[in-house]
Amino acid sequence: MTDSKTWAQPVNPLQSPRFGDVATFNRLPYVPDFKGKSVDVAILGIPYDGGTTYRPGARFAPRAVRDASVLNRNYNPHVGVHVFERLNVVDAGDVAVNPIQIQKTLGAIEKRMTEIHEAGARTVCVGGDHSVLLGELRAVHRKFGQPVLIHFDAHNDTGDEAWGEKYHHGTPIRRAIEEGLVSGDRIFQIGVRGPMTSPSQDDYQRQQGIHVLDIDLFQDTAKRELFFEQIHRVAGKSPCFITFDVDGVDPAFAPGTGTPVVGGLTSREALACVRRLKGLHIVGADVVEISPPFDQSDLTSLLGAALVFEFLSLMAIGT
Amino acid sequence: MTDSKTWAQPVNPLQSPRFGDVATFNRLPYVPDFKGKSVDVAILGIPYDGGTTYRPGARFAPRAVRDASVLNRNYNPHVGVHVFERLNVVDAGDVAVNPIQIQKTLGAIEKRMTEIHEAGARTVCVGGDHSVLLGELRAVHRKFGQPVLIHFDAHNDTGDEAWGEKYHHGTPIRRAIEEGLVSGDRIFQIGVRGPMTSPSQDDYQRQQGIHVLDIDLFQDTAKRELFFEQIHRVAGKSPCFITFDVDGVDPAFAPGTGTPVVGGLTSREALACVRRLKGLHIVGADVVEISPPFDQSDLTSLLGAALVFEFLSLMAIGT
Amino acid sequence: MTDSKTWAQPVNPLQSPRFGDVATFNRLPYVPDFKGKSVDVAILGIPYDGGTTYRPGARFAPRAVRDASVLNRNYNPHVGVHVFERLNVVDAGDVAVNPIQIQKTLGAIEKRMTEIHEAGARTVCVGGDHSVLLGELRAVHRKFGQPVLIHFDAHNDTGDEAWGEKYHHGTPIRRAIEEGLVSGDRIFQIGVRGPMTSPSQDDYQRQQGIHVLDIDLFQDTAKRELFFEQIHRVAGKSPCFITFDVDGVDPAFAPGTGTPVVGGLTSREALACVRRLKGLHIVGADVVEISPPFDQSDLTSLLGAALVFEFLSLMAIGT
Amino acid sequence: MTDSKTWAQPVNPLQSPRFGDVATFNRLPYVPDFKGKSVDVAILGIPYDGGTTYRPGARFAPRAVRDASVLNRNYNPHVGVHVFERLNVVDAGDVAVNPIQIQKTLGAIEKRMTEIHEAGARTVCVGGDHSVLLGELRAVHRKFGQPVLIHFDAHNDTGDEAWGEKYHHGTPIRRAIEEGLVSGDRIFQIGVRGPMTSPSQDDYQRQQGIHVLDIDLFQDTAKRELFFEQIHRVAGKSPCFITFDVDGVDPAFAPGTGTPVVGGLTSREALACVRRLKGLHIVGADVVEISPPFDQSDLTSLLGAALVFEFLSLMAIGT
Amino acid sequence: MTDSKTWAQPVNPLQSPRFGDVATFNRLPYVPDFKGKSVDVAILGIPYDGGTTYRPGARFAPRAVRDASVLNRNYNPHVGVHVFERLNVVDAGDVAVNPIQIQKTLGAIEKRMTEIHEAGARTVCVGGDHSVLLGELRAVHRKFGQPVLIHFDAHNDTGDEAWGEKYHHGTPIRRAIEEGLVSGDRIFQIGVRGPMTSPSQDDYQRQQGIHVLDIDLFQDTAKRELFFEQIHRVAGKSPCFITFDVDGVDPAFAPGTGTPVVGGLTSREALACVRRLKGLHIVGADVVEISPPFDQSDLTSLLGAALVFEFLSLMAIGT
Amino acid sequence: MTDSKTWAQPVNPLQSPRFGDVATFNRLPYVPDFKGKSVDVAILGIPYDGGTTYRPGARFAPRAVRDASVLNRNYNPHVGVHVFERLNVVDAGDVAVNPIQIQKTLGAIEKRMTEIHEAGARTVCVGGDHSVLLGELRAVHRKFGQPVLIHFDAHNDTGDEAWGEKYHHGTPIRRAIEEGLVSGDRIFQIGVRGPMTSPSQDDYQRQQGIHVLDIDLFQDTAKRELFFEQIHRVAGKSPCFITFDVDGVDPAFAPGTGTPVVGGLTSREALACVRRLKGLHIVGADVVEISPPFDQSDLTSLLGAALVFEFLSLMAIGT
Repeated sequence: MTDSKTWAQPVNPLQSPRFGDVATFNRLPYVPDFKGKSVDVAILGIPYDGGTTYRPGARFAPRAVRDASVLNRNYNPHVGVHVFERLNVVDAGDVAVNPIQIQKTLGAIEKRMTEIHEAGARTVCVGGDHSVLLGELRAVHRKFGQPVLIHFDAHNDTGDEAWGEKYHHGTPIRRAIEEGLVSGDRIFQIGVRGPMTSPSQDDYQRQQGIHVLDIDLFQDTAKRELFFEQIHRVAGKSPCFITFDVDGVDPAFAPGTGTPVVGGLTSREALACVRRLKGLHIVGADVVEISPPFDQSDLTSLLGAALVFEFLSLMAIGT
Repeated sequence: MTDSKTWAQPVNPLQSPRFGDVATFNRLPYVPDFKGKSVDVAILGIPYDGGTTYRPGARFAPRAVRDASVLNRNYNPHVGVHVFERLNVVDAGDVAVNPIQIQKTLGAIEKRMTEIHEAGARTVCVGGDHSVLLGELRAVHRKFGQPVLIHFDAHNDTGDEAWGEKYHHGTPIRRAIEEGLVSGDRIFQIGVRGPMTSPSQDDYQRQQGIHVLDIDLFQDTAKRELFFEQIHRVAGKSPCFITFDVDGVDPAFAPGTGTPVVGGLTSREALACVRRLKGLHIVGADVVEISPPFDQSDLTSLLGAALVFEFLSLMAIGT
Repeated sequence: MTDSKTWAQPVNPLQSPRFGDVATFNRLPYVPDFKGKSVDVAILGIPYDGGTTYRPGARFAPRAVRDASVLNRNYNPHVGVHVFERLNVVDAGDVAVNPIQIQKTLGAIEKRMTEIHEAGARTVCVGGDHSVLLGELRAVHRKFGQPVLIHFDAHNDTGDEAWGEKYHHGTPIRRAIEEGLVSGDRIFQIGVRGPMTSPSQDDYQRQQGIHVLDIDLFQDTAKRELFFEQIHRVAGKSPCFITFDVDGVDPAFAPGTGTPVVGGLTSREALACVRRLKGLHIVGADVVEISPPFDQSDLTSLLGAALVFEFLSLMAIGT
Repeated sequence: MTDSKTWAQPVNPLQSPRFGDVATFNRLPYVPDFKGKSVDVAILGIPYDGGTTYRPGARFAPRAVRDASVLNRNYNPHVGVHVFERLNVVDAGDVAVNPIQIQKTLGAIEKRMTEIHEAGARTVCVGGDHSVLLGELRAVHRKFGQPVLIHFDAHNDTGDEAWGEKYHHGTPIRRAIEEGLVSGDRIFQIGVRGPMTSPSQDDYQRQQGIHVLDIDLFQDTAKRELFFEQIHRVAGKSPCFITFDVDGVDPAFAPGTGTPVVGGLTSREALACVRRLKGLHIVGADVVEISPPFDQSDLTSLLGAALVFEFLSLMAIGT
Repeated sequence: MTDSKTWAQPVNPLQSPRFGDVATFNRLPYVPDFKGKSVDVAILGIPYDGGTTYRPGARFAPRAVRDASVLNRNYNPHVGVHVFERLNVVDAGDVAVNPIQIQKTLGAIEKRMTEIHEAGARTVCVGGDHSVLLGELRAVHRKFGQPVLIHFDAHNDTGDEAWGEKYHHGTPIRRAIEEGLVSGDRIFQIGVRGPMTSPSQDDYQRQQGIHVLDIDLFQDTAKRELFFEQIHRVAGKSPCFITFDVDGVDPAFAPGTGTPVVGGLTSREALACVRRLKGLHIVGADVVEISPPFDQSDLTSLLGAALVFEFLSLMAIGT
Repeated sequence: MTDSKTWAQPVNPLQSPRFGDVATFNRLPYVPDFKGKSVDVAILGIPYDGGTTYRPGARFAPRAVRDASVLNRNYNPHVGVHVFERLNVVDAGDVAVNPIQIQKTLGAIEKRMTEIHEAGARTVCVGGDHSVLLGELRAVHRKFGQPVLIHFDAHNDTGDEAWGEKYHHGTPIRRAIEEGLVSGDRIFQIGVRGPMTSPSQDDYQRQQGIHVLDIDLFQDTAKRELFFEQIHRVAGKSPCFITFDVDGVDPAFAPGTGTPVVGGLTSREALACVRRLKGLHIVGADVVEISPPFDQSDLTSLLGAALVFEFLSLMAIGT
């Protein structure tokens, strides 16, 4: 965290209208190379959707979230922090993904994030489909060790091979556990719901000790509160990583996504959940599975941009 | 109900991706003719929208719900049942409706459903505007007698003639009572709301003893619970029929519909209500008034497909 | 208020279908000139969007709300009033705005509303971006003195100059206070939320004594109830004006708007809030910031039309 | 035709912007009742789509064309006439169709048009699907005898029963010939193309002597010119009726239609063809099969509004 | 080719409306397994878009073209053939692609097409992005040897590696030549246009002797005619394969595509070009690069369905 | 013009996919400040739509064209030039417009362009509605004197006051002539068509000697050719300015625009016209009236991006 003399400030909308100029995240400076610059947080796009099993399009999410983020502002009254007085945040551009080969893309993500980590900054990533999480977690683990993982999603993402392929957007949690990047009992999943392939689909979660606040539990206010208390208790001051699959939110609020499941969180509930993480030591975060070609009125991109701002707020506070 | 050796299974998405192949309901076998086949439930399209008074388009709903249903899965963790291990479910195609003459369409619906009933199967229908309910109820009554009717809707559908016509999507409940297919005091309506033509519009419901959980009552948790208890008490082990007009749900969650009314159920609430019917003996169900030309990102079709799966789940349990 | 022999009635949809004919507000008579006619309430379009800072398009809102309002009916069961038996309501057409010069448009609004006031009628206006409120309040103040202002919005609209301009859709509340049209301690804001430019952005509200039920307070049922009790206590029988910026509602329910903020009211909550104002003496109301080019399936226009009907209901009761 | 002191003039867009006010056709006066008024041409909506065999939605066409027509102007430089200096044209509202019963709708069309004819005016109708043509021709025949029929379409519309129904949007030409309303050798079809049900589908046209400029002939400039010369030769000063199914135009230019066929006219070609009819004695015209729910950016409605203006221009000249 | 007693017929739309039933290509029988059935042509979906470099979504094309193809009919008057009296055509379902690994997908295509070839049938494929062509050509070459290739496209598709990958939708022609599947001097490209990476981008085409009718030449009627004469001269009675990338057509006519280039063919011109191939011995064909998420009013799918019908017509004639 | 060692190059799409990274025009360097940099052409956004009389939205055009321009390439085979080997082209960001005051926006445009001119560069501007042309011409005139003006448009833009305002998107040509920025007899208009306010609307053009190739003349190949010859004869080596209102193109090809007129140029014709200007000395150009909220599948933005590339090509050649 920097002192209040932060240099990286959003363009002032009272001088240049919000709809003007090249769209960078939050209208922040575009700084692909940090040399000689003090950067606290890099917002990083990962335009990859080769791991999706239904609707593609998440490759366009970084651009769409950049566009939507021009409506963001500076001070978060809900958690009480002026983000850009406390952190130098920049738009670091996008990872140069390989749209054809998922393994090469995972490698490129890890490499780019490691560069950023080595420059002393953390990342908030804008996917991409959820397969990109594995690349992110490899970099996070290399820098920070095993993080506590707070995971918003309609799905557990603990699936296994499909069509003989281990790596796709239904498997990053299983792969991350197998690679030792996270530990099951330090994973907290929120928003899971809907039909499953089979009753045994939950076995893996139970075996690994993954904590799941499914939608039925979520609606029980007391249980929800207990769940968040447990997150804070387990996390303490440990490094935490938030991964937010927008399909955790109901498709009425986030229609632009790859594998929608009806009956999810409202965006108001989602924001409240994220704000409830105030005080955690967030070393990285992402929002994934925004698919602009299926979006309406930019609803999903606006939510994505708002979540990025909430993640930045948590980072500005919890450091 | 069949034993666990059910023969009718959805295509495995781990072998053939969900976006591939001819789209049948839930990727189940297309079986228009049941001869020599054991079928428990037939999903049946009714592509008719000639009875609508505002936005047409429900004729395209069976196809749109087929497309959306490819995201469905097999096991319902919310009520605890693996549908396709307990029931042989098939896509029985569509009723050959007459787009010009409502009476002929009602006849075609009754005839086709009776064929299915005679083959020992029940139906889950995908309308079509709500006028198709009358044809369904004629067939249901012929086979099962007067069912308890659980009716989700923003409207009571107890209207009378418009432009001199008795049969349109605002009158099926009145016509069904007049024809003796259902009894008013065994009808339960959920989600009714919004302006009425006149204060006397409620008179018919009162006279017939129709139970109405309007949106104001719905929001009173205690009254809502009492209402569902009453459904279970009245229904007991009697045959029940669920008719779900998607406009019972708020248009933010179900924009693709013919006569939207703001201020309705969320899809999460709707799913919870349907699941609350667990244990009833469901002899038939439908989802109607999905109008794909007015839909966004398939929200309404996805909800329709999810409701079909919930209906199948209730049938798998409550038989 | 007129006696029950009101002359201004909506077209009967049982004779001429709702989708037919020239679309006027609620299918009411189009009466631009009241000479010789008894009119209680004029629904008045203000097709101006020159004051918007992000998405334009509100110039098309009056037409879109007219189209959507054909689904409206006559009797409001939620507050118990048959509007058109108690009030003669007409479509008075649109203010002839100047799309280029905001000051001239504000003048045209004031002039046209004053004509209507002088004819003995009140107005329900359909904006237009929120800058039009200033013109409305000038006319209201001239006729009724300082009203109590109930203000639904995601934003406080108490901003100051942008690009050197005092008048735009972020400043009408500040300008109205400065002009003495309203008093801060008689302004009630509901639904405010989201990031701010700076922590000091709230200072103005505090200094002026504006009452703010932000989204965090709104979710506290007890505090919400207290807030509405306070409105009724402060208002008593005084003239009240309701200004409803649709972005107070969550963009999932009102996607067609200029500066959306995620995490807002549901339309069900919004309707309940408006109905909670039953008993107030409403001398005018508006719904603003509907931008049809960004709308989906007419969601926002339908909400706008429903709000107009609720305002008319309050006027029919509270007079 | 009136003298130059015509009373019915469009609203002046330099005083009231085009996007403002209640939308009538061409911003002309709304005059449902002609008593005491001199009217030359009535623009009349026919919001009926019950006869369509694929995409419905044409019921919304009159409103959509009204909206689009606000961009129209007064003087047609392509044929050289100031329409509203020569004709009193009004918006006569919509026929009160019966959305359920096609026969009753045909009757309502005939009745309403006859009223207008008896008041001394001609009509330009905005459908509605093409089945409405039969009602129009009944009225035209009653007033003017058998007209020469100039018919733009991708289809011949000489089909016969479907699902046992004689009346639907594929049969109006056959039915009109059978009823003696038109004579085959005085019908001229332009734009027909695409696959047919069978090779014998053309037999009827040949037997009746219908003149067909199919798309292959259309592209042969010399043959096209001969065809139009033949129209003028056959028509001379006889009454002519133009029926324009927008699917005659390629769906790139008219996407909002019920049964699109690729490979059609451009809108530029379509306008040129209509202008080529200059000098004919047009006693009525229509544009049909515009389906706004399937339209994009109002392309089809704009084309419909432009065609209405061209028809008015021909009427202003050729009287 | 079969005799006139063909068994595979489209559903009769006069009995079951076009919008009804499970959508198969042209409403033909769904026959994934040809055992015991005489099949002449299999329409085969290839729902793969992993090779696209810009907009994905072609994975949804087979379903979208099935939906659009319900408007197709039986007799092609433009070339004079009743397709289904001469050929047994079926919907053979989709290739079970691997969405993650392009090489496995190419293998699956080759394998499935070879099965079909061995059953004595030819294929018309509906892609998929253009990378699928390589799989198709491997199967075609195995069965028929090197075909004459008629290639509609805005691009030459003779690119080389991108991001180190040899196989993507910009390279199938180069790869096919390298693998010996086709010979450059027997490739005919139509519709190529727009900016290039460098002036040397044409070198490969020249070296390989590929015939290119770019958009400038296309507009020269004489040169266009010479080009088609050359195709017929070179092809004679040899096996021919048509590959139609819809971006050869202008995006106004085919907006739903992955890498649109303005200034292309109209769909009328495209159909005329295909019909100009009458008489060739077509052993296979495809239409690729239809991306339904970017389509409007099904324009591109309708064009795709029409092209499939034209290919079938050529096959019915030219065998 | 620089030598071949140009420093400003688009990002290589074979290394970083086209859908990745912050979107600048043509993926060129973002260089708001030219100090110490050699720049030949600046692409400059003007996000202003306050002068539009119907559909707004052009404020979003610079961003949308940036997004679409990522599909552009380097070499223009149609006129034979590798743009970026001959010119250093950069994205200079957007003019900081005043969305409320048109006069201040015109001033800001003039000021920003003059800065660029003084740095030795020319501009290609992306509007904005057509009112921005006046600001551009003021700067061009200051630097280069009166240019020959080549003006693509459906409208003459020689209107006068509306609502008492002299400056709006219908008047820039008249205002520019009045201010002496251009001379009528050196203005060439292409694509003008459609209804006019009155027969006298053409008087101004005739009086000023403006050359108009309206759509009827355009279709006469010989007259079209003569018109372009005249442009070249009049222009010779004089400074020329191209202003391209996308509504000159038919709305099927450019649906996203403010005041569409059916029956216009195809995009293929438009590109051919622009290329026909090869050899002129282009000192500036713009493309205006792109309104992304009304666009479909980015058709209009893609056309805008293509036109920008053609303008750059002309500049690279004609210097």
